[in-house]
Amino acid sequence: MSEVVVTQLSVSLDGYATGEPQTLEQPMGHATGRLHEWMMPPDQPGGGRTRDGVDGAFAALGWDGSVGVEIMGRRKFGPQSGPWTDEEWQGWWGPRPPFETPVVVLTHHPRPTLHLEGGTSFHFVDASPAEALEVARGLADGRDVRVGGGPSTVRDFVAAGLVDRMHVVVVPILLGRGVSLWEGLEGLEERYDVETVVSPASGVSHLTFVTKH
Amino acid sequence: MSEVVVTQLSVSLDGYATGEPQTLEQPMGHATGRLHEWMMPPDQPGGGRTRDGVDGAFAALGWDGSVGVEIMGRRKFGPQSGPWTDEEWQGWWGPRPPFETPVVVLTHHPRPTLHLEGGTSFHFVDASPAEALEVARGLADGRDVRVGGGPSTVRDFVAAGLVDRMHVVVVPILLGRGVSLWEGLEGLEERYDVETVVSPASGVSHLTFVTKH
Repeated sequence: MSEVVVTQLSVSLDGYATGEPQTLEQPMGHATGRLHEWMMPPDQPGGGRTRDGVDGAFAALGWDGSVGVEIMGRRKFGPQSGPWTDEEWQGWWGPRPPFETPVVVLTHHPRPTLHLEGGTSFHFVDASPAEALEVARGLADGRDVRVGGGPSTVRDFVAAGLVDRMHVVVVPILLGRGVSLWEGLEGLEERYDVETVVSPASGVSHLTFVTKH
Repeated sequence: MSEVVVTQLSVSLDGYATGEPQTLEQPMGHATGRLHEWMMPPDQPGGGRTRDGVDGAFAALGWDGSVGVEIMGRRKFGPQSGPWTDEEWQGWWGPRPPFETPVVVLTHHPRPTLHLEGGTSFHFVDASPAEALEVARGLADGRDVRVGGGPSTVRDFVAAGLVDRMHVVVVPILLGRGVSLWEGLEGLEERYDVETVVSPASGVSHLTFVTKH
């Protein structure tokens, strides 16, 4: 049975998954790349998923072909808001995005589907989390559905009880402001078992939430 | 050289160190005892610090005679606010508190010093963090000063740059509301090295903050 998963969602010790403000030059705001150094060492620009050990294992989670579709919020797709003034923007990732699957982009302003290189297509949908999940399952070819972010999108899906497994990375820095992953999720531990492991290399904590049965 | 330390400060994954509301019956509000089960197993009521392994080691931190005085906020001493209507209240801990040292209680409403059994005395002081620390050092007999809580008191001392070492326990539950430890401490990682270890028995994370040199 295919599952709904979250992977590599990195937050600061105070729960912020992005800083502010989000701009074209700095999608993570004042967080810059600090939440993702555990998988992308700063001394290896463009090196991508190059870590070894537990960080390397968690960086690869869900990138093994098990995920058949990704759902993301519009702010993960781009910095624009409101109606599209043009449709030139094809996402942050250039002509060949890393997803290599269909991607459902949640937006109140749908536009035609984009087909890019490597198998990635962006489908723009104005829908509730449950409705979007139905659309995504239809595109997933029986594989897992990843809720890819940003944090408010993940929060909405978790709050709606739609997420089966979630990998959250707690980075020991204090951002102080930004978009919180945890807001409104009081009592989450009643629905999930939580396992934590610390990476001795990077110092981050990898938390795995699995739905209780 | 004596240091200023914080020990056994437990917070939820979303950063709350107490729930709400604080009452005479439930000092931790809706958090109840959940933030402290790692050191006080719920099946051993009144058992105190009974854990083994890494939880037991961290539960004993600072209770080995190295601490000569504790500083606490008024809300850690009692649930009252404003002027004291009577001075019967002697703290949450009964006639023999566990501190066995002088304790400086921060309050805008000073009252006479209380001397209780076992060596604990409560000194009521209306002072800034830096001033209170001077008072505390004068009572510490050359030993360490512990900032004992609550969270807003710890936050004030950390923000003022007065804390040398801090042991924080992150419990994998989401309280959703209460008093946050982290608010206003953006960039704390620039001043402290942070080490994290997970307890395999309880599942909590023990974080040790040590001032960078």
